[in-house]
Amino acid sequence: MSNTSEFEEQEIDLNAPLPGSRRVYLERDGLKVPQREVALSGDEPPVRLYDTAGPLNTDPRKGLPPLRKPWIDARRARDGRIHTQMHYARRGEITEEMRFVALRENVDPEFVRDEVARGRAIIPANVNHPESEPMIIGKNFLVKVNANIGNSATTSSIDEEVEKLRWALHWGTDTVMDLSTGEQITETREWILRNSPVPIGTVPIYQALQKVGGRPEDLSFESFMEVLEEQARQGVDYFTIHAGVLLRYIPETEKRLTGIVSRGGSILAKWCLAHHKENFLYTHFEEICELMKQYDIAFSLGDGLRPGSIQDANDRPQIAELETLGELTTKAWEHDVQVMIEGPGHVPMHKIRENVELEEEICHEAPFYTLGPIVTDVAPGYDHLTSAIGAAMIGWFGTAMLCYVTPKEHLGLPNKEDVREGVIAYKIAAHAADLAKGHPGAQDWDNALSKARFEFRWKDQFHLSMDPEKAMEYHDETLPEEGAKIAHFCSMCGPKFCSMKITQDVREYAEEHGLDAEEALKVGMEEMSHRFVESGGEIYQKKAGAQ
Amino acid sequence: MSNTSEFEEQEIDLNAPLPGSRRVYLERDGLKVPQREVALSGDEPPVRLYDTAGPLNTDPRKGLPPLRKPWIDARRARDGRIHTQMHYARRGEITEEMRFVALRENVDPEFVRDEVARGRAIIPANVNHPESEPMIIGKNFLVKVNANIGNSATTSSIDEEVEKLRWALHWGTDTVMDLSTGEQITETREWILRNSPVPIGTVPIYQALQKVGGRPEDLSFESFMEVLEEQARQGVDYFTIHAGVLLRYIPETEKRLTGIVSRGGSILAKWCLAHHKENFLYTHFEEICELMKQYDIAFSLGDGLRPGSIQDANDRPQIAELETLGELTTKAWEHDVQVMIEGPGHVPMHKIRENVELEEEICHEAPFYTLGPIVTDVAPGYDHLTSAIGAAMIGWFGTAMLCYVTPKEHLGLPNKEDVREGVIAYKIAAHAADLAKGHPGAQDWDNALSKARFEFRWKDQFHLSMDPEKAMEYHDETLPEEGAKIAHFCSMCGPKFCSMKITQDVREYAEEHGLDAEEALKVGMEEMSHRFVESGGEIYQKKAGAQ
Repeated sequence: MSNTSEFEEQEIDLNAPLPGSRRVYLERDGLKVPQREVALSGDEPPVRLYDTAGPLNTDPRKGLPPLRKPWIDARRARDGRIHTQMHYARRGEITEEMRFVALRENVDPEFVRDEVARGRAIIPANVNHPESEPMIIGKNFLVKVNANIGNSATTSSIDEEVEKLRWALHWGTDTVMDLSTGEQITETREWILRNSPVPIGTVPIYQALQKVGGRPEDLSFESFMEVLEEQARQGVDYFTIHAGVLLRYIPETEKRLTGIVSRGGSILAKWCLAHHKENFLYTHFEEICELMKQYDIAFSLGDGLRPGSIQDANDRPQIAELETLGELTTKAWEHDVQVMIEGPGHVPMHKIRENVELEEEICHEAPFYTLGPIVTDVAPGYDHLTSAIGAAMIGWFGTAMLCYVTPKEHLGLPNKEDVREGVIAYKIAAHAADLAKGHPGAQDWDNALSKARFEFRWKDQFHLSMDPEKAMEYHDETLPEEGAKIAHFCSMCGPKFCSMKITQDVREYAEEHGLDAEEALKVGMEEMSHRFVESGGEIYQKKAGAQ
Repeated sequence: MSNTSEFEEQEIDLNAPLPGSRRVYLERDGLKVPQREVALSGDEPPVRLYDTAGPLNTDPRKGLPPLRKPWIDARRARDGRIHTQMHYARRGEITEEMRFVALRENVDPEFVRDEVARGRAIIPANVNHPESEPMIIGKNFLVKVNANIGNSATTSSIDEEVEKLRWALHWGTDTVMDLSTGEQITETREWILRNSPVPIGTVPIYQALQKVGGRPEDLSFESFMEVLEEQARQGVDYFTIHAGVLLRYIPETEKRLTGIVSRGGSILAKWCLAHHKENFLYTHFEEICELMKQYDIAFSLGDGLRPGSIQDANDRPQIAELETLGELTTKAWEHDVQVMIEGPGHVPMHKIRENVELEEEICHEAPFYTLGPIVTDVAPGYDHLTSAIGAAMIGWFGTAMLCYVTPKEHLGLPNKEDVREGVIAYKIAAHAADLAKGHPGAQDWDNALSKARFEFRWKDQFHLSMDPEKAMEYHDETLPEEGAKIAHFCSMCGPKFCSMKITQDVREYAEEHGLDAEEALKVGMEEMSHRFVESGGEIYQKKAGAQ
């Protein structure tokens, strides 16, 4: 991929690691944790990065190898039944999934177990999705990213959705939600699950609604449970369940500028009003827990009343629902079912921190999982960016996973290029949050890239980028020649105005003459300046010959 | 210039306001402040927005009308010489520029005068740039955005630069910096100035360096002053002057990961080392003030030692330089010369606030003007986004103007599409900051757009967008038919899954039956639910016929 013309064709090879990277494995005690290793030039040590892309060169029609199957089978054989990761964690047992995660995050397995046991982190891992490579969601781990895909009544096919899944994985999403609402929901989900090395989440109420012809008032708990059972068996790792949308909260949303903007929330609100009954997801919550624990599916307790505009942020219905989610968290934990809590949405910057503080207090530190938040309503077409601002901040404040927003939000359904834009925007937000949290080792990546940049190792800089293809494409737009990739100046300014080049000259001069910073001061700048001038004025032209 | 084909299909009319908008004027006491009025459908009142696009349908070869000329001439005639805005402010006189700005920002003219007098805000307005529409930069006003344009040795022509200027204006930049370093610097600048309704800034050391063949050691104060005089006469409104790069700070940058990354900073560092003399911009600072006050040019005191990587953020050289800038601020103010202070750069989120606090303390609240900051180094190709995160936050904390970063940062020179991306990213950051600061009236824009969104007034939503062309383009990608623009459902989910549609149905039902939120509770939800079901199940299908 080093060649310009090759790149201009924009060929994204989904069967290969990112350009300049190779797949390596961190091996310990029979576990193999995938990593992306970026080889660097000269004597620079390679950089290893967290990798979610999954096995390469697989056949989508055959699906991925069932990595976790032996672990699951062995536990089932031993215990005579399925238990959740939380169950094992609470009784002090470190599962293979926990050890895998510990290796992946470079922490102690006992720490992983303890975080899962106290509910502050979850490992979404349906026993029927053995293809998944274990990952953990919790504030004391790397901040994670979710990408939404899924067809709708107006657009897209199964092939397109699988393609979107693979694009999302290529650029590093940590989980994927299949939000399909159109035709062939079950089949689409099957293809996605069998080809996904990351946990898959769904919002089962969408399929339940489809089954009753799109009439929310015709929904019933029984028909909902059929859907849940089907999806559970297929291997969905976490379910968004809008059990906090209570009947009494609904009238309060009438005071809002934008009412209820969650699809699930509005479906349940309509059911509640039509029947004048309490939300069946709330009244039957324990039955749902019973089903989910049989597969080790995690709850993503949905924020059906999240604000849909800056005006509605942090209002009473939102907080009221959060209180109910806190109550349900305790209930789910009684069943050893893992829980994360969904959060907004649309929130101006000064109201972001309050969301995290309230969630942690009310929901007992269950991992927070937010959609953005978007920090202003006025920029449709750029909501990946507008929400990446809020996502980075809320991640810093303690949110465990950030649900991406694509440029098409509020306007249309994302295509695969939008998926790429959304994933990268959120990988940036998540990494910025890791840096701000001082996550151990997070800054090594930045340092490696900045060092490459400063030393004009262009290809190293590209290969270390979040999106190497894009970095190369943009560089080639200005200076397409292959020689420019080894140039000792930046493409922005040309050779004479390159600050990094000038700085390097200064530094090289000092080094050549055996001066370090301290010494330069000691020897005296006067002396140094004489030598500097004598050594031949135009230092940064010396490769072109003396003058 | 390789723009995407997608974009070429789209016609951006630089001679017209944004789609759905018209130019209006807020008139008072003979002043005419331009605004962008977005007409809305139905009975919705139009929305008026701050407008920087300048006069429309002008001929670039003739330039813009000299709006401020009569004011400047009258003052000159009366006082026998030129005085700065700060001079008038301090002696209690409210200039036309201050009244214009007060009208534009919807504040009291006396407040403007007081902020300028105490140095907490500046009105960059060279008397030789009478074409400019007065604007103010200060933390108690709307957060502003600057766009950098300018050619380099490797690329671009005058026509392209003027085109970039007009693109930046079209999407709302508040000032523009011409950073040309290539051929025809003077001529390019002349075209830009004569066609710019916003203040123009430059970094004069670039031209000075060009004049001495690109050899920093050949620079002299005298040759620098010739450049300064030329640019001052042309009408440049603010100069970046790197007078804080002191000889003794330079060796400290050797400890950095990325040394000196400011072009101006590295040029002066090299001069200082070569001559073993103190920076001539520092030693001759008062002479520079003398020149600048004759034209009412503002200082943008450059941060030549800003960090170029996360690793180097908030380090000793950066803060040492800031202390020198504080000292120079006091000096400039003794000459009634307006000052703003440039800031970083590369800063992780948790170190951003400290930058604003230190700047305000050390530089006596002179307006802060930052480049981003970028919050991680690892995403070249997306640095407009990575830095918009930092920009939004630093704007919220009190930074007065945000210098944009384009997607090409670190990779190449921006083309006009990059200019658009950069300006929009920063307009988003600035507006998000205004919201977080609780700036009076800022949220009206968000509310108008969200209301339009909730009421399915698609065209109103597009027209109220930061970038209407982009919003329309993205919507059309999913649902290109004209009918979709009046559809009562979102293009993402289709009619049955549209949360806003369902919510509206619920709300309409309550309204039709004379129920408001309170009443619904009082009447009892039981009663309401009966009526709801009786009124005919599929409310949101009623347009398609009863069932």
